[in-house]
Amino acid sequence: MTAPDLRLASALFKALHDASFDGVGITRDTYGEGEQRAHDIVAAKARELGLEVRTDAALNLYMTLPGRDRSLPAVMTGSHLDSVPRGGNYDGAAGVIAGLAVLAGWIAAGHLPEADVTVMAVRAEESVWFPVSYAGSKAAFGLLPRGATALMRQDGLGTLGERIDALKGDSAVLEAGEAYLDPKKIARFVELHIEQGPVLLLENLTVGIVTGIRGSFRYREAKILGQYGHSGATPRAHRHDAVVAVAELISALNERWVELEEEGRDLSVTFGRVFTDPEQADFSKVSGRVDFCIDVRSFEPATLTRFEEILKLEVARIEQRTGTRFELGERTSSTPAPMDPQLQKLLLDSAHALDIPARAMPSGAGHDTATFALAGVPTVMIFIRNENGSHNPDEKMEMADFAAGARLLSVAMAHPVVADTSLQGAHSDA
Amino acid sequence: MTAPDLRLASALFKALHDASFDGVGITRDTYGEGEQRAHDIVAAKARELGLEVRTDAALNLYMTLPGRDRSLPAVMTGSHLDSVPRGGNYDGAAGVIAGLAVLAGWIAAGHLPEADVTVMAVRAEESVWFPVSYAGSKAAFGLLPRGATALMRQDGLGTLGERIDALKGDSAVLEAGEAYLDPKKIARFVELHIEQGPVLLLENLTVGIVTGIRGSFRYREAKILGQYGHSGATPRAHRHDAVVAVAELISALNERWVELEEEGRDLSVTFGRVFTDPEQADFSKVSGRVDFCIDVRSFEPATLTRFEEILKLEVARIEQRTGTRFELGERTSSTPAPMDPQLQKLLLDSAHALDIPARAMPSGAGHDTATFALAGVPTVMIFIRNENGSHNPDEKMEMADFAAGARLLSVAMAHPVVADTSLQGAHSDA
Repeated sequence: MTAPDLRLASALFKALHDASFDGVGITRDTYGEGEQRAHDIVAAKARELGLEVRTDAALNLYMTLPGRDRSLPAVMTGSHLDSVPRGGNYDGAAGVIAGLAVLAGWIAAGHLPEADVTVMAVRAEESVWFPVSYAGSKAAFGLLPRGATALMRQDGLGTLGERIDALKGDSAVLEAGEAYLDPKKIARFVELHIEQGPVLLLENLTVGIVTGIRGSFRYREAKILGQYGHSGATPRAHRHDAVVAVAELISALNERWVELEEEGRDLSVTFGRVFTDPEQADFSKVSGRVDFCIDVRSFEPATLTRFEEILKLEVARIEQRTGTRFELGERTSSTPAPMDPQLQKLLLDSAHALDIPARAMPSGAGHDTATFALAGVPTVMIFIRNENGSHNPDEKMEMADFAAGARLLSVAMAHPVVADTSLQGAHSDA
Repeated sequence: MTAPDLRLASALFKALHDASFDGVGITRDTYGEGEQRAHDIVAAKARELGLEVRTDAALNLYMTLPGRDRSLPAVMTGSHLDSVPRGGNYDGAAGVIAGLAVLAGWIAAGHLPEADVTVMAVRAEESVWFPVSYAGSKAAFGLLPRGATALMRQDGLGTLGERIDALKGDSAVLEAGEAYLDPKKIARFVELHIEQGPVLLLENLTVGIVTGIRGSFRYREAKILGQYGHSGATPRAHRHDAVVAVAELISALNERWVELEEEGRDLSVTFGRVFTDPEQADFSKVSGRVDFCIDVRSFEPATLTRFEEILKLEVARIEQRTGTRFELGERTSSTPAPMDPQLQKLLLDSAHALDIPARAMPSGAGHDTATFALAGVPTVMIFIRNENGSHNPDEKMEMADFAAGARLLSVAMAHPVVADTSLQGAHSDA
């Protein structure tokens, strides 16, 4: 197997950085100038390589090296090119660049794949811009939720549909639910991505092979209503203290998280924002209101269900104890997406054979791969060790680690395609 | 004893309301137009009544009905006329108006007191404007902290000294620590004030006789520093979650409060403001920073000391458990001020005799009376039942309750003055 083209990868990372550095970090705004410049740079490079370049109605970008038998289901890889505001250069882009680096290596070596191999640059993965998850990949499968094109970008710069149409996409096609991709015509989807947590770094491993992408339920705008009172003059028994209520909820759910972890359940529980009312709260007031959000994730559907029951019970108990009232507000959720066991084994075995330190691990963060997995496509992800987390300017991926990940990606992309079960015998001999 | 002049009281409440209603609530800004208008209204009424009207360098207002023997120590009553922004009409003003209503009743009935009786309208009690407690009453005793005149008003409208001088006070006198009042020349100080909590309302009592004013320690700008991380990708064991740390602190200190209360200690513990960073926090991020404040009050100095030790121990424990770092920041404190036992007994006995439902109770909130008490003046306070707390537009004091409180105030003001022990026998016969 020929090696991925790392010079091309470095040049693309630099080009993307220069096109999207905002003075503090990287901003490639979804369906905005930042994301569009990244798509233009990547598409131009794909054309240079002689790949077939297409877009769909959502402006997802498909860059294809045609296979010997174009009737076979295609191998797909890719990731997204948008970023959070003031984010880093690797989150998303690394997966697209790795795919192109692999294809560039193949082309240079004259390697012609069995089936079409497509690198996809997915749109709109960072839901900070539009409040809908996996908008680009869902749109490709005709699965964008009804009405989503009317959602306003968080900075007020037009709706999802307006932004798509302004860039010459076709939001009407998305609202009609027309699919561009057919899961039956996709042999597999493999996504390379930087790890967004510290696990590989702390365990001194180069790559992670993802076992599943966690699902979640979230209450992004929950609140607790109590009653303001003078801090010195309101006895404990007469208080309706929203701060005490939220503290009890956080402490109680943290304890239950520990218990479930000890039972071997996969779970994460996060209260990312908690705040008293900036106008009304004061150091000498019992607090009458706290706003908060809760993000619960697991790749076990039963654990999500169980934890939501625990949440509801704790809320009822704490309401009673503290004389406050909870309004959890709108609930959003996503379904856990298991990765394909055979693809996992292929990559773990290959990492071992190539002497790349690796482990199996769940993905706590969401990725477009989940859309493919839930559509029935066999999927897997490769995580690359990364310092300082993601969604900030300090993301730090070493190119040596990227090279190791791209080699594994190349293995997964080159793995024989089995069109249907009748061919399986023949291919397993290959 | 003649009854307090309730018509005068109602007229003054209305005049103050009309001069300081801001569209939402009452704003009588400290050393600003709001407070000054209130002082002008009250001083004009005092002149109408024929009282001697004076001010000191801090512009505290003294309205005196001369006594038969002007060499005797004076009886003093009063409260403050400033308010928090968008506050209520009764917090503070009720005590000044009650004093004038009592004197107006005496004057109408031709009653001439034994010693001078002075109603004081104290400046700058609401420390939301300038970050110093009891500025007006401390200044009267030459006890304003050095450098306090350089403190900026919270809205940036000049320093304490600049505001005082603009209103024709003399900030240099305050900085020099010159006293206007001499504790030895004050027989007692009695303050009537609305209750700022719900105790009297819930117990269906008209007045409270205050046993002591709680002291406090406060950290108004404490923070917890953790580490931001992806909510899904950062395992529990690798988190440094500032939200979990603050929740543990609040829950733990609340439990210790319950324990100390069960031991019979007087205590209140309040976390009035708690907030993640509005810029950095996100629903999908483990939180790297939480700001909070803590206000601890007791009228037992030993309980304050003990609880501060508990706080420090809990902080150390939680820092270790959560991998976060606390910075408590600047500490401010005030000393508990016990009220005079004989004055308490006088008022409780009088309430009983007058059939006014009353109880003894501590004051959780701070009041200028504490300054007098700590200067060695015998003091007591009368709380009036009040719905909806204070520091908000919904303060609700019934005039019937005010009338009962003013009658008790009249008793305390008329009580014989004992200049020194050699006179005690003579006066106790009066």
